[in-house]
Amino acid sequence: MKTDIFCTSPVLDYLRDLHREFASVTEGKVATYIPELAKADPNWFGICLVTANGTVYEVGDSRQPFTIQSISKPFVYGLALEDNGRPSVLAKVGMEPTGDAFNSISLEPGTGRPRNPMINAGAIATTALIAGKSPATRLRRLLEMFALYAGRELTLDDAVYRSESETGHRNRAIGYMLRNFDILSEDPGPTVELYFQQCSVSVTCHDLGVMAATLANRGINPLTGKQAIRAEYVESVLSVMGSCGMYDYAGEWIYTIGMPAKSGVAGGVIAVLPGQLGIGVFSPPLDSRGNSVRGIRVCDALSRHCDLHLLNRPRTGKGAIRFKFTAAEINSSRVRTPQEAQALHQFGSSIVVYQLQGNLDFATAEAVVHDITHATASVRHLILDLKKVLTVNESASRLLYQLLLKMADAGRPVLFTHVDHLPLLRRYMKAKLGARFSELFRSLDDNDLALEWCENRLLEATLPAREPDRAVQPTDYELLQNFTPAEVEILTSLLKRRVYQQTEAIIESGDDAREMFFLARGNASVFVTLASGTRRRLATFSPGMVFGEMAVIDRSPRSARIVADTAVECDTLNVEDIERLGKSHPEIRIKFLENLTVSLCRRLRKANRELSLHD
Amino acid sequence: MKTDIFCTSPVLDYLRDLHREFASVTEGKVATYIPELAKADPNWFGICLVTANGTVYEVGDSRQPFTIQSISKPFVYGLALEDNGRPSVLAKVGMEPTGDAFNSISLEPGTGRPRNPMINAGAIATTALIAGKSPATRLRRLLEMFALYAGRELTLDDAVYRSESETGHRNRAIGYMLRNFDILSEDPGPTVELYFQQCSVSVTCHDLGVMAATLANRGINPLTGKQAIRAEYVESVLSVMGSCGMYDYAGEWIYTIGMPAKSGVAGGVIAVLPGQLGIGVFSPPLDSRGNSVRGIRVCDALSRHCDLHLLNRPRTGKGAIRFKFTAAEINSSRVRTPQEAQALHQFGSSIVVYQLQGNLDFATAEAVVHDITHATASVRHLILDLKKVLTVNESASRLLYQLLLKMADAGRPVLFTHVDHLPLLRRYMKAKLGARFSELFRSLDDNDLALEWCENRLLEATLPAREPDRAVQPTDYELLQNFTPAEVEILTSLLKRRVYQQTEAIIESGDDAREMFFLARGNASVFVTLASGTRRRLATFSPGMVFGEMAVIDRSPRSARIVADTAVECDTLNVEDIERLGKSHPEIRIKFLENLTVSLCRRLRKANRELSLHD
Repeated sequence: MKTDIFCTSPVLDYLRDLHREFASVTEGKVATYIPELAKADPNWFGICLVTANGTVYEVGDSRQPFTIQSISKPFVYGLALEDNGRPSVLAKVGMEPTGDAFNSISLEPGTGRPRNPMINAGAIATTALIAGKSPATRLRRLLEMFALYAGRELTLDDAVYRSESETGHRNRAIGYMLRNFDILSEDPGPTVELYFQQCSVSVTCHDLGVMAATLANRGINPLTGKQAIRAEYVESVLSVMGSCGMYDYAGEWIYTIGMPAKSGVAGGVIAVLPGQLGIGVFSPPLDSRGNSVRGIRVCDALSRHCDLHLLNRPRTGKGAIRFKFTAAEINSSRVRTPQEAQALHQFGSSIVVYQLQGNLDFATAEAVVHDITHATASVRHLILDLKKVLTVNESASRLLYQLLLKMADAGRPVLFTHVDHLPLLRRYMKAKLGARFSELFRSLDDNDLALEWCENRLLEATLPAREPDRAVQPTDYELLQNFTPAEVEILTSLLKRRVYQQTEAIIESGDDAREMFFLARGNASVFVTLASGTRRRLATFSPGMVFGEMAVIDRSPRSARIVADTAVECDTLNVEDIERLGKSHPEIRIKFLENLTVSLCRRLRKANRELSLHD
Repeated sequence: MKTDIFCTSPVLDYLRDLHREFASVTEGKVATYIPELAKADPNWFGICLVTANGTVYEVGDSRQPFTIQSISKPFVYGLALEDNGRPSVLAKVGMEPTGDAFNSISLEPGTGRPRNPMINAGAIATTALIAGKSPATRLRRLLEMFALYAGRELTLDDAVYRSESETGHRNRAIGYMLRNFDILSEDPGPTVELYFQQCSVSVTCHDLGVMAATLANRGINPLTGKQAIRAEYVESVLSVMGSCGMYDYAGEWIYTIGMPAKSGVAGGVIAVLPGQLGIGVFSPPLDSRGNSVRGIRVCDALSRHCDLHLLNRPRTGKGAIRFKFTAAEINSSRVRTPQEAQALHQFGSSIVVYQLQGNLDFATAEAVVHDITHATASVRHLILDLKKVLTVNESASRLLYQLLLKMADAGRPVLFTHVDHLPLLRRYMKAKLGARFSELFRSLDDNDLALEWCENRLLEATLPAREPDRAVQPTDYELLQNFTPAEVEILTSLLKRRVYQQTEAIIESGDDAREMFFLARGNASVFVTLASGTRRRLATFSPGMVFGEMAVIDRSPRSARIVADTAVECDTLNVEDIERLGKSHPEIRIKFLENLTVSLCRRLRKANRELSLHD
């Protein structure tokens, strides 16, 4: 949904400027080695930039079809890795740059292994590795692979294919040379034909952008969400593009443009900035090395203007630490007595919550672990909130595991919250912790519960123990503090006892607010249901506390549901009785209201203090 | 300051395991081409990993001195770039990988230009580019450069230097060949000597780790904070390391290990993961290609275990958006009347605040701009909070500039907060906006002021205009609502009028709380001074509102300073008078307390609502 003023994005504006600037470049010559390619209009010119998040920016002739040619090579290399595994592929094709032209044969002395999969010899050896019993099934497999990358069905340009096949003598020679060295184990004919077919796949500049973005996004097509290649092979595909993708221009390309790239003789170029974006450019006129003139200019300008050089990256810093606080600053929604609140304020700094964010890899996790072990002097309870973490890789999992183990050995619990979207972390912990997994890997749904658990442990250690199912008397109610026994008695005469079973609702959201509740025994919690459907705890009360008073004060309907966490006994005070009290015993009503303002004030100060930490 | 349980970091534990594992490797042979190198103990073995944040992890013989040898080449290449600029350097040395061994001569046909600066011929041509009139000043310049990278003075190992010089016939031959092609313009003798000297600089594994981390940190030594090389040249240094750093092993190195790297014949290896970390390894036994056997094994293991491959990166996503909210959810600390609060709740979603974080580059800024222009339907006021942003590069500045311009053209202001630590952004805006800079680039100290400015504009557009210097009567005081005229009169008789000049303190932090204040005319603001020394506004009050009541309620000293923003008139109500009122007119005291509980309740609900957004 675009708004009126944003009919064009700033990124699109920029690409239009680039397109206009380089459209006037007239250098280069359209490939003529087959008649079909010679038909290309030298003015065709498209640019497409696709982010790893799946936003597409395209300008010019971005939907003009042309043949993929050599840009197919890295994708087929990825398919060969998927179909055979890395060792089998490396036995047939190397990965050293040659510094030679695209059609050099460059076989390794001795083994006959082509130097790398980006030269024709290596590409043909790679094509031979596509799985499938017949030429037809292998072609189908090839097209299915391309469809996953492009997010749509791709077809062959038959005219180009026939033309390639009729004139492809040099590639047939390469095929036989490979057969001679047993790099191809069968008649090279069908493999060379399949190679001509892969080069004749018809794509658009838009397709190239999406295909490049799929490589930038660890093999997941960012538009369809489908996996085109396993993540572990993406780095291999990008490595050969980076070191050998632009033939004898590879070193200069990495030096000046700094992105793995591949060009095709029909005028296409792709470039990939891992984790960030993919670029497709199409313009048929080629330079003497066989690379698209405008394609190179556009990639060069984009790299310089947008600082896309792979090796020019700012440091991550402690960017993974979104927010950090202790229980001396922010507490769980368990409502505490003034004495408990004081103990938490005093000792709560030993309970530390780290809210992490982004991608946790070695460097970001190291910064987190370093901060935990150094910046914070005495973490006795550690809560790691992973809600905003996008991914956790294995090396980050290992660092967190080692941290957990060290903490556990010192009797200091680590609690993880919001880990359900990160199954790798749980699997890693399970594999490493074995029998101790359920004891040591504490995973909770939210910080609030985790914080309460830690607070309770801290309070148990610092305050005298309480009876577990303690009931209190009206003299203990927080709002009746400083009352004389006579005053307590008068107020008590207005109270009505109510009893609730565990899980029973005491207040329903939307109800009229007719009374406030004094909790005599058990615990009760306030819950709201968020727009997302998740239930969220706002507060938990213990005996002696008042609840349900706010709606009574501002005469609004109940805003939340209050539920008995345990068997609960309450004393309720009715609105009319409160008002009558003002008439009959104004001094009691005044004292009661004063206590209420003190209670509200304390909670407001706490909320404001916590809010100020978020700025 | 380490704590008891963290005498070792998990990262250090891991490096110790690696060291133990590879210490048992006995393959390889210590270099023997000069007697001095042959004296090295093959058991020497050190590993040092330094993060771009400056955390050092080192194990084994990490402080054993050895000579830097070819690892000097990329650093000297950086120095040549600094001293001559890129075009002059490129005229003398190329950047294409050769696939040949380190001592290959590999001059480009025609120009005689060495293929790249990592082979000896290219390195000698590079050394010739170090600025300085005499050999001594050039050596001094070289050592100063190394000192910046290592963070300490480095010296020559004279024995190794003499030995190199006595046996360096091949390098002298290379020197004369370069002279022959006019790559060297003078007698090659002194340059070749300086080359022997640069190879004889004595370093430790710890030094290598720090030097590598300096390259990972865009040229800033992360331990000293000093700049060793300009950021723009770091990508060039890393590019030649990446494409040519490991000689004929370069393609495989990038394929399997995936970090720019350089090895030396004395057994050192460095590897760099830009933005993240640097690695130094030292172990003298070499493989047949002249690379340290254990050095390669350690880098390979680190890369695999810690997922350090440069081309294997997760997507950034919308990681730059830390928090986003509208003025319908969270408001400035300007205290609003119920009517104003209602208007903000209803229309405030057109005021949107983006709290950004981390490094803003093209990809992260694109995601932000895309979110602003698409996800949020109708942003009429945009606040960009850059407090947690670490860096903004030029391409991100351009996107923000273009966004600002589009918004401005539609009459929609963009406000930036916390931009002082990002001078590049301001400079960029100034250069691009020219005469419109002061009008369009609104930069405020904090979100609160920015939010209030936007809220005020919104309220002006939606509510009837108020008199600018309006004074209110006691009947308008929020706490006297629902009072009868007679009740107002009784209460008013207790009030004492006070007058303050603009900027005068009404309440000082720490004072006893003897009275509450009713604001009759003007504005007053509450300020606290944070531990950091910055003054922070907590609230601003308008006529009719009460302030200073919380300390009166909970009988605590004043917690903040309250200052007259304008000329101010207040009515004060004294504690003793309030108490006396309870005796003489309990019904008025009750009404007053009831109004106070309603006011506190409203503020507590607002604070809780805002707090819940931060989870």
